Amino acid sequence: MRKGKNLKEMLVRLRDLTDLMVELGYAAILQDDRELAQEAQRLRDEIREVAYNMRVLTIFAAKGLPRKDVEQLSSLLQIGVAVKEISDGIDDMVEIVSRGVHPIVQAAYRRDFIMKVMDVEEECPVDGKSLEKARIPEETGFFIRAIRRGDDWIFYPNSKTVLKKRGQDFPQGKGCCNKEDTILCQKNGEKEKVRLLRKF
Amino acid sequence: MRKGKNLKEMLVRLRDLTDLMVELGYAAILQDDRELAQEAQRLRDEIREVAYNMRVLTIFAAKGLPRKDVEQLSSLLQIGVAVKEISDGIDDMVEIVSRGVHPIVQAAYRRDFIMKVMDVEEECPVDGKSLEKARIPEETGFFIRAIRRGDDWIFYPNSKTVLKKRGQDFPQGKGCCNKEDTILCQKNGEKEKVRLLRKF
Repeated sequence: MRKGKNLKEMLVRLRDLTDLMVELGYAAILQDDRELAQEAQRLRDEIREVAYNMRVLTIFAAKGLPRKDVEQLSSLLQIGVAVKEISDGIDDMVEIVSRGVHPIVQAAYRRDFIMKVMDVEEECPVDGKSLEKARIPEETGFFIRAIRRGDDWIFYPNSKTVLKKRGQDFPQGKGCCNKEDTILCQKNGEKEKVRLLRKF
Repeated sequence: MRKGKNLKEMLVRLRDLTDLMVELGYAAILQDDRELAQEAQRLRDEIREVAYNMRVLTIFAAKGLPRKDVEQLSSLLQIGVAVKEISDGIDDMVEIVSRGVHPIVQAAYRRDFIMKVMDVEEECPVDGKSLEKARIPEETGFFIRAIRRGDDWIFYPNSKTVLKKRGQDFPQGKGCCNKEDTILCQKNGEKEKVRLLRKF
């Protein structure tokens, strides 16, 4: 789904953005990883934009509706406040990473998840490949959580989604030229396979 | 993992609790479901408790450490503030559900997820079965997101996790007598299979 055209779509997008932001915020602290913290901050900015657009659309949608409907619709404006609180909370967590995380929280924890950010760069072996052919989980043990394409997010990539490095055209999408793909991926435990990611 | 004994474990638990709370908060609005809203509120209470315990443990951990370490450790106290903001945000969302959600947000959205709460009750066919034998995904199309056992949460149940109705003993765990299992599960789209859940 793209930016979301109606209130329900916007709400679903807010959910996906918030969900990923929470995961990234905690992963940034647990792994003491500033790259993850930066991605969380990008999500915060988009969350605020979607929340703003939702407020505008709610007011438009309320026009000409009877009082009872307007009351129920107006409660959706509360979502903007709620989302602001959530994103402020994650912001505070991300700030902790910028000050440096004490090693006490990085003690080994066997069943923990690891998140990583990878950019699809020049001469990267997955550039131009569909996810089916890139075989990232098979090669690295990491599952793809989401793909950021410039300012846009793909939360549900499928096997046909093609990975692109910066500066390429994307004939299948609107306005997504000169935008590189950034892959957010996660895996369960065992650090020894992480090195493989550096192939990209 | 149980309640968490060290700072890292507590942080991982907070992540799991926050993550689920965000999913439940949005699902409660999108599905206009008060049961989901109630579960989100339970999570809020536990999040606050874990955050409190974490603050106490941080101060204990800081005792006798050099100044630099204390500074880095103290930034973890910020997590308490962050988590409070996030849970306040979800609280606001849950409040919207109690006022009734306008049908405009419930318009059909094909790729959406559905979340459901199921209690393991008397004469329930899955009572006493391991997840492997209960075959919930196969029978209902729903995947298990988490299991609540009284006040405790199992975020990573495995195939050997046994489902229990209220009032039974749980010889494998401490202090979990007289606690029923509540299953939180989710699926992708298609509503027709939801009826099957009522079997439980």
